[in-house]
Amino acid sequence: MSVRILTPTAFILVLLSVPAVAGSDPTAIPPQTAFVLNTFMFLVMGALVMWMAAGFTMLEAGMVRSKNVATICTKNIALYSIAGLMYWLVGYNLMYDGVSGGYFGSLSWFTYPDEAALKTAEDFGDYAPASDWFFQMVFVATAASIVSGTLAERIKLWPFLIFVLVFTGFIYPITGAWKWGAGWLEVEGFLDFAGSTLVHSVGGWAALSGAVILGARYGKYNSKGQVNPLPGSSLPLATLGTFVLWLGWFGFNGGSQLALASFTDASAIARIFANTNTAAAAGVVTAMVMTQLMYKKVDLTMALNGALAGLVSITAEPLTPSLGMAAAIGAIGGVIVVFAVPMLDRFKIDDVVGAIPVHLFAGIWGTLAVPLTNPAGNFITQLTGIIAIGAFVTIASSILWLVLKFTVGIRVSREDEDKGLDQAELGLEAYPEFGVGSQRM
Amino acid sequence: MSVRILTPTAFILVLLSVPAVAGSDPTAIPPQTAFVLNTFMFLVMGALVMWMAAGFTMLEAGMVRSKNVATICTKNIALYSIAGLMYWLVGYNLMYDGVSGGYFGSLSWFTYPDEAALKTAEDFGDYAPASDWFFQMVFVATAASIVSGTLAERIKLWPFLIFVLVFTGFIYPITGAWKWGAGWLEVEGFLDFAGSTLVHSVGGWAALSGAVILGARYGKYNSKGQVNPLPGSSLPLATLGTFVLWLGWFGFNGGSQLALASFTDASAIARIFANTNTAAAAGVVTAMVMTQLMYKKVDLTMALNGALAGLVSITAEPLTPSLGMAAAIGAIGGVIVVFAVPMLDRFKIDDVVGAIPVHLFAGIWGTLAVPLTNPAGNFITQLTGIIAIGAFVTIASSILWLVLKFTVGIRVSREDEDKGLDQAELGLEAYPEFGVGSQRM
Amino acid sequence: MSVRILTPTAFILVLLSVPAVAGSDPTAIPPQTAFVLNTFMFLVMGALVMWMAAGFTMLEAGMVRSKNVATICTKNIALYSIAGLMYWLVGYNLMYDGVSGGYFGSLSWFTYPDEAALKTAEDFGDYAPASDWFFQMVFVATAASIVSGTLAERIKLWPFLIFVLVFTGFIYPITGAWKWGAGWLEVEGFLDFAGSTLVHSVGGWAALSGAVILGARYGKYNSKGQVNPLPGSSLPLATLGTFVLWLGWFGFNGGSQLALASFTDASAIARIFANTNTAAAAGVVTAMVMTQLMYKKVDLTMALNGALAGLVSITAEPLTPSLGMAAAIGAIGGVIVVFAVPMLDRFKIDDVVGAIPVHLFAGIWGTLAVPLTNPAGNFITQLTGIIAIGAFVTIASSILWLVLKFTVGIRVSREDEDKGLDQAELGLEAYPEFGVGSQRM
Repeated sequence: MSVRILTPTAFILVLLSVPAVAGSDPTAIPPQTAFVLNTFMFLVMGALVMWMAAGFTMLEAGMVRSKNVATICTKNIALYSIAGLMYWLVGYNLMYDGVSGGYFGSLSWFTYPDEAALKTAEDFGDYAPASDWFFQMVFVATAASIVSGTLAERIKLWPFLIFVLVFTGFIYPITGAWKWGAGWLEVEGFLDFAGSTLVHSVGGWAALSGAVILGARYGKYNSKGQVNPLPGSSLPLATLGTFVLWLGWFGFNGGSQLALASFTDASAIARIFANTNTAAAAGVVTAMVMTQLMYKKVDLTMALNGALAGLVSITAEPLTPSLGMAAAIGAIGGVIVVFAVPMLDRFKIDDVVGAIPVHLFAGIWGTLAVPLTNPAGNFITQLTGIIAIGAFVTIASSILWLVLKFTVGIRVSREDEDKGLDQAELGLEAYPEFGVGSQRM
Repeated sequence: MSVRILTPTAFILVLLSVPAVAGSDPTAIPPQTAFVLNTFMFLVMGALVMWMAAGFTMLEAGMVRSKNVATICTKNIALYSIAGLMYWLVGYNLMYDGVSGGYFGSLSWFTYPDEAALKTAEDFGDYAPASDWFFQMVFVATAASIVSGTLAERIKLWPFLIFVLVFTGFIYPITGAWKWGAGWLEVEGFLDFAGSTLVHSVGGWAALSGAVILGARYGKYNSKGQVNPLPGSSLPLATLGTFVLWLGWFGFNGGSQLALASFTDASAIARIFANTNTAAAAGVVTAMVMTQLMYKKVDLTMALNGALAGLVSITAEPLTPSLGMAAAIGAIGGVIVVFAVPMLDRFKIDDVVGAIPVHLFAGIWGTLAVPLTNPAGNFITQLTGIIAIGAFVTIASSILWLVLKFTVGIRVSREDEDKGLDQAELGLEAYPEFGVGSQRM
Repeated sequence: MSVRILTPTAFILVLLSVPAVAGSDPTAIPPQTAFVLNTFMFLVMGALVMWMAAGFTMLEAGMVRSKNVATICTKNIALYSIAGLMYWLVGYNLMYDGVSGGYFGSLSWFTYPDEAALKTAEDFGDYAPASDWFFQMVFVATAASIVSGTLAERIKLWPFLIFVLVFTGFIYPITGAWKWGAGWLEVEGFLDFAGSTLVHSVGGWAALSGAVILGARYGKYNSKGQVNPLPGSSLPLATLGTFVLWLGWFGFNGGSQLALASFTDASAIARIFANTNTAAAAGVVTAMVMTQLMYKKVDLTMALNGALAGLVSITAEPLTPSLGMAAAIGAIGGVIVVFAVPMLDRFKIDDVVGAIPVHLFAGIWGTLAVPLTNPAGNFITQLTGIIAIGAFVTIASSILWLVLKFTVGIRVSREDEDKGLDQAELGLEAYPEFGVGSQRM
């Protein structure tokens, strides 16, 4: 830039162009800095959500019997991988590309923008598209993880993975489009900040329809209606998984603010972290006190599910509650789990890890609770969204489960179930030297 | 802003108002950017510290016998939850609100600011209050985790949790107020950057008083004074826990810089990361070499505790040491652990995981070492702080342990201890198919 | 700054100094903000890479038999510690200080800059030196972790650690200097973004030379050339380790952009995250489909190694590929693993965890694949780098292994190998109550 003598008026104009870099507010964060902050936030938060895949794996590996542990590990790393590929090939654009008030987007795969062609801050936008893709991709994997836990110990590996392929490529993105893709539920005013319904209930409905169609594990319920608990193989791994999920949830809820680069956004994410933690803590304490009062013993698996139910409950609205309301919302999540687990057993719906109470029931509760703290929320609209999404996911999932059942089959043989899926499906053992394995040595 | 023709003097004033956005230094980071950076730093670092709760859980689950693993998992997720609730309801304001040279703050709960009412950068301050609350909350949970490890395998669940409730709501916040709440020890010039004393020794004193009052596990010491090692059930889980703690400690020490948004702060956090890692590494190597020389075998549990002792040692001053001094400080931490573990056994103080040597003794060492590298430190003042805090926590904790002992009781029966706390307190097993569990199948 | 009346020309000069803070581009991020962002990025990404040390530990602990689990944990925490100390004392400056087109840098230790003496943004540079040291340090630990897995279950503890000391202080930094230290391979135009060759193959060559010199475990291969699988003790821990590595790899590849603070850098890191995930996902799916087709069963350990092979493959160039090319590059990594594992067995090279196929073979593939998507790459130059580095590391490592073999010895006795290294080398057991351990109770 050459130095020229300017008239006073020209001076002023040059001068004003300096704050103009940052828009009309001279204290606003300039666009390139904001772009970097928002993008980095998506990546850090997305990495935390990716870590939830490990959390579900450990939770489920600890909650199944040792003869099925390797299979549940296989399913979880496979479903995370399939989710990542399908959401690139189909899901992301189906959910976000040109929905605008409608029901779904375009059938096309996600591609990177040509960054070399972008020149101005407006071209770049608020964050890197790849960072948003990454953040949304780990969400669909979360929803799929919910299904694997419920159906463990008796579902065949490959048919389950075919379900995951359709679920992550089509079912989740379609209901996702209705709200987060700016579809009809967004127009209606349905509120679901980070996905109590769009992620957790969607996974929960798919799990519920699968559990009904697949049936209970042999030996879980006897002819007199008694419940045989079939305890999981490793409670420390289940506990580890819960802590991983709790940690990942900061990214899940915090990143759903979708921006970091302003007083408002940064303050919002800070509140979301505090509320998320408080709801989970209240879920744990409530579940512990309830099981102590009802059964005279604290049940660790209920405490773990209490944490998760607290987390799911606050997910639909982690920003507007006070800490007290966050605690109350999470505590009610903990209560729901303690009552819902035996209730499902009365209907002989066999949910190996308690994912339906945690993700579906607490998800419904969290979605209904939004208007309690967010004046923009409306109870009827929330109910509309819950029912519409529940109906779609249940119907679509049920059709898919039934098609799989009557073609390739979804359930292993009685003999394979007794032997364990690790032997039957993988031909190996998770713990060859311990427990069941060591008796064969 | 309308464009007006200004006099040259007015020009200057307008001109100066541009850098004024960023304070008097035209290169300083503007307040909104700084606010976002500092807030985000607190949240990321706080998430790492939250993750330490999983680290303590895995460390302790690996160090206890399989019959007590589910109980230690229960205690850890419960204590993290209780800490989060109590620090909101009581602890934070008791520690930070209006202490000013005194002994404690106000008895009130923490609430979010009304962000809608904040107008200017000055109103917003340097970071979001909720991010600071989150960061401080995970610290109190860390202190409580220390207690659970020492007292494992014989303490009753609910009395332990009552202790945690008082400890996280009152005991920790009061001594915290003395220094970090700007109380009398801050006025004295006591230095404790991230809490060798305020977090680790506070947890250690509470653990020590509990261990003395509770007594040793049956079978740990025989009448001839011999020590029976009672090895832990899973060294890989203990190792995992140590790595989790090591990772979390970057957040613990790094976030204690309390700001990111300047050359000085970012450089400081980078040094803190490097020093923290180096101290831990030196603690591992020292503990390994020492156990090889003394016992002709490397002891993995000593190597793990050497890492943790190195980390605790550097926590009081992770910024001012050179890498060489950081290594020396951590190495001495490793030496302390190797000598202190058998010393405690001589006094028949039964510390299941070695938390007293790691957190209390290395914490004292780290606090005394501050003046070696920080010229603002003073040996006498450091000693004053150590003694004052030690006395308060020991007295308060002992009273609380004794009240619990003579009311609800703190120790399970001999029979329950033999059977294991998982059976006795929870009515379940951590590993029902392995080890002790499999013999019942 | 006093307010003085300036001439119009002086006005201009003052005026121009405002945007000059941010360089010639008025939208560029100012230097102090950029410094903070870049530094924080290094620390966050470096913490993720540090976490990979836990991933390798869990992967290896799950893949060895229970009688060797405590030893592999000991080796891993020790090697991470030694790497951290040696890279400070020797490695960093040997790799980066004054290489300039040559073969290695200076023999001196890394020290912090005197930040009090730095005055201007130019003095400070683009990031805090300690943050770069931290980020590079965790890379050398990664390379060393690769070696421990291959040689597990029969190598002596201390000789292995002596190897690690030389490897992390000298061997890795020298080949690192050739490219990342701006040495002769950088001049040649060799491309290796995050270290398919510089980290993973370097570790792989060291592992391969060690495996050849050390020999196979007793019982792995019988005289008829049949392979005895010797299954690992805990597939859930191996799965956990793989997820940890996957998470850490976002830091590994993402942080290797070496800057965050611009549209270009932030967009690049976002692409790198998406490509890294996609390559790993494709590696999993490919390995699963291949094992299903070849063996009629999915092999979980192959799926895990497929993920890692996908990650290693994309590491040499995670930025320029489209998502489709990233998937293809990762998928070929998965194919390589499925074929290479039995191939190594044909040569009776006993690689306990499959680290040679994953890190060496997929590393070579990834390095050769760079020119497919990066026009700056050249196949011949890539091959030159692979061969030069492979030759140096193989020769240097072999000499070191042979010196150790003929002085202190590198292999435990047959008796100790049968008994397990935990008993023989550490005098303890990883799982005293389960499996092998419980039979002694």
